[in-house]
Amino acid sequence: VPSTSALAALAERLPPGALTTDPEDLLERSTDWSPLAFLRGLRAEPGEELPAAVAFPSSTEDVAAVLAWANETGSVVVPRGGGSGVCGGAEASTGSVVLDLTRMDRVLNVDEESRVVHVEAGVRGDRLEATLAERGLTVGHYPQSIALSTVGGWIAASSAGQASAGCGSIEDLVLGVTAVLPGGSIIRLRPVPRSAAGPDLRRLLIGSEGRFGVVTQAFLSCTSLPGAYVWDAFGFDTFDLCMAWMRAVVAARIGPAVVRAYDEVDSTLAFGTIGHTGGCAAIIGFDTNLPAVDERRRAAAEAARETDGKALGPSYGTHWWDHRNDSVDLYRRIMGAERAFGSGVVVDTMEVAGLWRDLPELYRAVRGALSRRADAVSCHLSHAYPSGSSLYFTFLIRASDDHEAERTYLAAWKEAVRACHAGGGTMTHHHGVGRLKAGFLREELGDGGLEMLRAIGEALDPAGILNPGALIPSRSDRHPPLV
Amino acid sequence: VPSTSALAALAERLPPGALTTDPEDLLERSTDWSPLAFLRGLRAEPGEELPAAVAFPSSTEDVAAVLAWANETGSVVVPRGGGSGVCGGAEASTGSVVLDLTRMDRVLNVDEESRVVHVEAGVRGDRLEATLAERGLTVGHYPQSIALSTVGGWIAASSAGQASAGCGSIEDLVLGVTAVLPGGSIIRLRPVPRSAAGPDLRRLLIGSEGRFGVVTQAFLSCTSLPGAYVWDAFGFDTFDLCMAWMRAVVAARIGPAVVRAYDEVDSTLAFGTIGHTGGCAAIIGFDTNLPAVDERRRAAAEAARETDGKALGPSYGTHWWDHRNDSVDLYRRIMGAERAFGSGVVVDTMEVAGLWRDLPELYRAVRGALSRRADAVSCHLSHAYPSGSSLYFTFLIRASDDHEAERTYLAAWKEAVRACHAGGGTMTHHHGVGRLKAGFLREELGDGGLEMLRAIGEALDPAGILNPGALIPSRSDRHPPLV
Repeated sequence: VPSTSALAALAERLPPGALTTDPEDLLERSTDWSPLAFLRGLRAEPGEELPAAVAFPSSTEDVAAVLAWANETGSVVVPRGGGSGVCGGAEASTGSVVLDLTRMDRVLNVDEESRVVHVEAGVRGDRLEATLAERGLTVGHYPQSIALSTVGGWIAASSAGQASAGCGSIEDLVLGVTAVLPGGSIIRLRPVPRSAAGPDLRRLLIGSEGRFGVVTQAFLSCTSLPGAYVWDAFGFDTFDLCMAWMRAVVAARIGPAVVRAYDEVDSTLAFGTIGHTGGCAAIIGFDTNLPAVDERRRAAAEAARETDGKALGPSYGTHWWDHRNDSVDLYRRIMGAERAFGSGVVVDTMEVAGLWRDLPELYRAVRGALSRRADAVSCHLSHAYPSGSSLYFTFLIRASDDHEAERTYLAAWKEAVRACHAGGGTMTHHHGVGRLKAGFLREELGDGGLEMLRAIGEALDPAGILNPGALIPSRSDRHPPLV
Repeated sequence: VPSTSALAALAERLPPGALTTDPEDLLERSTDWSPLAFLRGLRAEPGEELPAAVAFPSSTEDVAAVLAWANETGSVVVPRGGGSGVCGGAEASTGSVVLDLTRMDRVLNVDEESRVVHVEAGVRGDRLEATLAERGLTVGHYPQSIALSTVGGWIAASSAGQASAGCGSIEDLVLGVTAVLPGGSIIRLRPVPRSAAGPDLRRLLIGSEGRFGVVTQAFLSCTSLPGAYVWDAFGFDTFDLCMAWMRAVVAARIGPAVVRAYDEVDSTLAFGTIGHTGGCAAIIGFDTNLPAVDERRRAAAEAARETDGKALGPSYGTHWWDHRNDSVDLYRRIMGAERAFGSGVVVDTMEVAGLWRDLPELYRAVRGALSRRADAVSCHLSHAYPSGSSLYFTFLIRASDDHEAERTYLAAWKEAVRACHAGGGTMTHHHGVGRLKAGFLREELGDGGLEMLRAIGEALDPAGILNPGALIPSRSDRHPPLV
């Protein structure tokens, strides 16, 4: 815990008003949107487990000043964007300094010829998109959290958006970055479409969850704003047939902006209000500005016929599009202070990924593991690749009280991650690791992979000041994983 | 230089016949295909600057044994695939041990459902493709060196193939890897379509040029073997108009397998034999199995009309396709012992990349720099992205003798890289850095980027045994960059 005089010294290195110790500011930025944070937040006494201060940098140099100070004083710094992560990646330990990037929210330049936007890392997704829309452009990166999350958070958490089929994930969009390394030095990687000048250092910051550096600016690739979307939907008797259809769509290179397929429970959750009565539903949406949309739609329909699918019309897709981010509010109401479902209830999501060959069994194994602990489990495929897909599970646990819910919740995660790894999958497609899954990283990457990541982390951050406990499990007991 | 007894100890750790000190084996594997290697090779006396031994591992464990031995004895190891690199990345210093992966050339498994091929790193590109073609599949990674280079070499050198527009570059294709880290430990990263479990360690091996580890196996994503290609070509009065057309093709998401555009000199070199008489030519090829090829072709033609292009018919494309790898033989004849053009002649290529907005000036600046030293300079665009493109220069220097040619050649590189960096480009799109460009890496990545890469390298390879001098400029004078 930094002393009062140490904090005063930090304040002096920053512009006026850039450092706060106001308890409300501290409380608000002490956690992210992880279910455990909600559960514990509801129980916490004010002042318990709070960071020591929140710094609001206005520039890359401010960030460097904070990290230099942290190295000198041995203080822990927890970088933070919108705080919408769900794995405890931005959980601030007692006495740490939260580095809140949200005042660095400018769109610095739009290069309309190259279709590249240069932004500060704290810009929120919806605001970035509004600026680009005025010029007929979009980054095309639409996570469900777009009205909460920031570009820096997308990079740190290895984000993927709802239109990843058409626009790729964050690693396909980041062309250049400015970042401050843990030691306080600044790196500026020029924006280029591709480079073979060594391993891609940008890719080392993507997914690093605030361990390897703090991204302060980014150059993102843009594309034309879609004219509109046209939607088709198909119904299948089984989820395996849904998967087969999605695999065929990707193999045929039909080029949708969005393609999603739901198991029976998730189909009912997603489309029950518009009359869905049974079986599995899948939707596919095309940007009408793409060449040959009609022929693409015919190819998707043909693939559906070959996997015993029945056309369900356009309403499923438009309904999904119109309500695609509703569950963000719903989740907050279930988990937050409003407690829509009463105490003892936890809702979470688990997004794994695997190869097509492994996917049916992976689905059954993870669903089985979650079902042993949860009262409801549903799943959909939302990010498809030539080689495989993500599986996005939603599960709800209802227990006698919040303590019991937490115990059951942690057991569910443990067993589901084991099932995932045994089935050949990765335990996270786009939510990241955070503190929740850090304890499973050895199984995910193997001994060699974990030691490689650790060696890099220790080389870049010898003093261990940046977000210890997130992503890479601590060697000591000081920052234990949550599970 | 390892002692005879040290080499004997190494031989004992490997299967019989896996270590050779035969001078012919050493000479053959002492360099790659870089022009400097050819020039110096022609002058060298046998026995001069030779590695001490060549090891031929048959397994990941053999590779680990070599690296463990190297750490114990402080010996330098130079990993090697097909040896077709052109930047001195596989140049073996005196006394080093060459680790030749080409006996690890098995295709281990083809998962036809997930379209994933599991290979050993030493498999040659053309052989891999022949195996996949029997199953109607392709990796779609077609570098000009495909009949020489290996999968491990593609990964180490951050390769991009001729069909990158349709199939992506090597980082888009590698789903999993097995590698031996410099210390001798093995990492096995499972094949998954995408993962958010930390920074992508696969991407840290891609482009690492044998500094951060030796890749021994890889899982690559495949796609359907194209039915056939249909080709169109367009003529433009200026190279700027070529660029504008290519930018429009990418922006419209027309989806070609191949798209290339040539400046006036390169157009004559590429298409003079089929009657091309002036101006700039561009070709575009589509896989006929893609949906809506006719509409895509119409969209490409429409984009050409909007940038003042004239249709040139299908012969340009088919001619390019049929002769696309001829220059590999031509290069060997010009530069190798056959010396088609006599002594004092050097031919090389320089492939930079930049954003569309910067590209016309970048082209003029790099061409101008090369022209001040070279007798002929030509250029084409061969890898297009939404944000920009590569610029692939070919240049020929004719001097009074090989020594003078080498001096002029080094000056040309120095000045051209400076012009590239001043113009906002990256000095390499897909050939890598090697020893040739290591001296420019600080300017490429900035102080912070170079120090980040160095810190990682020193953490992974504290004894400095893996390929010192390649990619990352040495802190000492022991392994100086070539330029």
